[in-house]
Amino acid sequence: MGASVGLAAKRAGVDWVGGHDPDAAAAEAAAERGAIDGAGPLAEILAEADLAVVAAPVTVLPALVEEVIAAAPDRCTVTDVGSTKDWTLGLPERFVGGHPVCGREARGAAHATADLFDGATWFLTPVTATDPDRYRLVHGFVASLGAVPVAIDPRAHDRLVAITSHLPHALANLLVNQAGAGRIEGHDPLAAAGGSLRDMTRVAGANPRIWVDIFLDNAPELGEALAEHRRRVEQLEQALAEGDGGYLARWVAEASENRRRMLAEAYPDPGELQHVTVHVPDRPGVLAGITQALGAERINVEDFELRHFSTERGGVLTVLVSGADEAARAAALLEAQGYGVSVSPVLDA
Amino acid sequence: MGASVGLAAKRAGVDWVGGHDPDAAAAEAAAERGAIDGAGPLAEILAEADLAVVAAPVTVLPALVEEVIAAAPDRCTVTDVGSTKDWTLGLPERFVGGHPVCGREARGAAHATADLFDGATWFLTPVTATDPDRYRLVHGFVASLGAVPVAIDPRAHDRLVAITSHLPHALANLLVNQAGAGRIEGHDPLAAAGGSLRDMTRVAGANPRIWVDIFLDNAPELGEALAEHRRRVEQLEQALAEGDGGYLARWVAEASENRRRMLAEAYPDPGELQHVTVHVPDRPGVLAGITQALGAERINVEDFELRHFSTERGGVLTVLVSGADEAARAAALLEAQGYGVSVSPVLDA
Repeated sequence: MGASVGLAAKRAGVDWVGGHDPDAAAAEAAAERGAIDGAGPLAEILAEADLAVVAAPVTVLPALVEEVIAAAPDRCTVTDVGSTKDWTLGLPERFVGGHPVCGREARGAAHATADLFDGATWFLTPVTATDPDRYRLVHGFVASLGAVPVAIDPRAHDRLVAITSHLPHALANLLVNQAGAGRIEGHDPLAAAGGSLRDMTRVAGANPRIWVDIFLDNAPELGEALAEHRRRVEQLEQALAEGDGGYLARWVAEASENRRRMLAEAYPDPGELQHVTVHVPDRPGVLAGITQALGAERINVEDFELRHFSTERGGVLTVLVSGADEAARAAALLEAQGYGVSVSPVLDA
Repeated sequence: MGASVGLAAKRAGVDWVGGHDPDAAAAEAAAERGAIDGAGPLAEILAEADLAVVAAPVTVLPALVEEVIAAAPDRCTVTDVGSTKDWTLGLPERFVGGHPVCGREARGAAHATADLFDGATWFLTPVTATDPDRYRLVHGFVASLGAVPVAIDPRAHDRLVAITSHLPHALANLLVNQAGAGRIEGHDPLAAAGGSLRDMTRVAGANPRIWVDIFLDNAPELGEALAEHRRRVEQLEQALAEGDGGYLARWVAEASENRRRMLAEAYPDPGELQHVTVHVPDRPGVLAGITQALGAERINVEDFELRHFSTERGGVLTVLVSGADEAARAAALLEAQGYGVSVSPVLDA
């Protein structure tokens, strides 16, 4: 991720970006990619720096941040890009903790990109001791990379990401391992996976080298989130055992309302969202043909997804549009191309 | 779903499709849509039928199937499209249970489509008592609609869908309700949702009228799946509490292996799959421009997803291709269009 920070900083007009990596080949790759203007020993590269951004796996990050703070001149502000933040409590006033949430994991300079952070939330975790000028510097830098800085207390940050990221990752692993644990009278549940199981296990098995450390690093907060999850599972089991339809109806309605609130972050009017769905053959040109037709008719596409099932089964294309009229226009267009179209509201009334 | 069966049957060349619905307006809508050639009272519509397909909410389905069996002449084979199957045990030899897994929920004849079942798994649940000729008839009919018939024991079916569909739906509801339960020092976890939480709550809150009944109907099997899930959560909590990195590494590796096995159903060589990811602005023409360029260069796109974050933040486009060379070609093409590209393997080596 360091190389992407470098590329984004260069794109933002930063004069000179220096780099240091214990692995000289990595530094060289970053220089070749244009992510840094020069590399060198830590003290040398930090001598003239206004800002140091420390990027490293969570296991070595705290020690490395301490090392950079010790090596950097007093004028140099220090920040990091680690995914947990409670370990930053007690660091000197010129440190400002950071965590860009960019989803994509660009590994190595070869996959670095200047726009990795465009539109991404970038948590900053200033504490009472943090120098306000240093905070403003990091805030401005992060915004100049295209990210949206969000200030949060370090401990609250770790509880928040436990819920928004670590718990979902853990549940994805748990679910795929349960589904993969054995056959049911000869049928492999993984082979019979429908859309919901596929959706919910997309992040399963991701990057063991990174994720084992993240889980360990945020173990207390993730543990609490899992314990709370388990209590909720027990309540659901009880409602099912008692055949309590009222509980289930309230529970699904609450989920619907929460999903509406989540969608409202991305879409001005989630209640208007419609899925327009067609089955498409596994054939070249289908994708371009459909997007061109939608574009020509100026259908305003919010999300667009083509999901392949297999060469024999083809795939399913889902277009998300806002408003029943827009959905009807999209449906008519696709029907005119010979597709059978389903339209359904994303949220139930 | 009945109207979609009718449309698909007409597409398959069935001479005459009759319909019956207690709600006359619904039958009329199906006729207008071309899903049925005629409607009438149950006994009348069944008098000349070779096959009756019963589609209704799970709560009324068993009684309706009994009614159809009683009203239909002996030569008429009866099947259904219900999502649970244990209640079909003990039905006469001319009944063959069915369950099409089509993901899309086309509600009402207005949204019915002939290709709803193309490529979809359609479970059939013959038992020892089932007449083999009747089973062959239903098998052939289902295949003629474009679906892939899969035979399974009724009880095994219910355990299977508990794992592949009902448990994922339940976890999606549980997760979104936990994330939506309260703010963390002023921050709403739903507002800070990253890709994993969004992926894992896509089916949350779906269709309370349908899903409450499905959960209740399959309560024992779903309850067992939830109890097993809870045991797995407890094991994970213990590993986290003990800081057991070895357990976590094995657990993530197992998830990765299971995910590979699931992907192998859709893709011949999942180890070759690569994600090519770019950040795109929220602007008309972007989608058509990219798919046209990919099509012109004959890039073989497996999956394609544009996910919108907001008008200000734009969206992220993910193209799934097979093979590092294809990924490099796609990346070069998108870079030439001015996008910053990330490439990463879907499965870690």
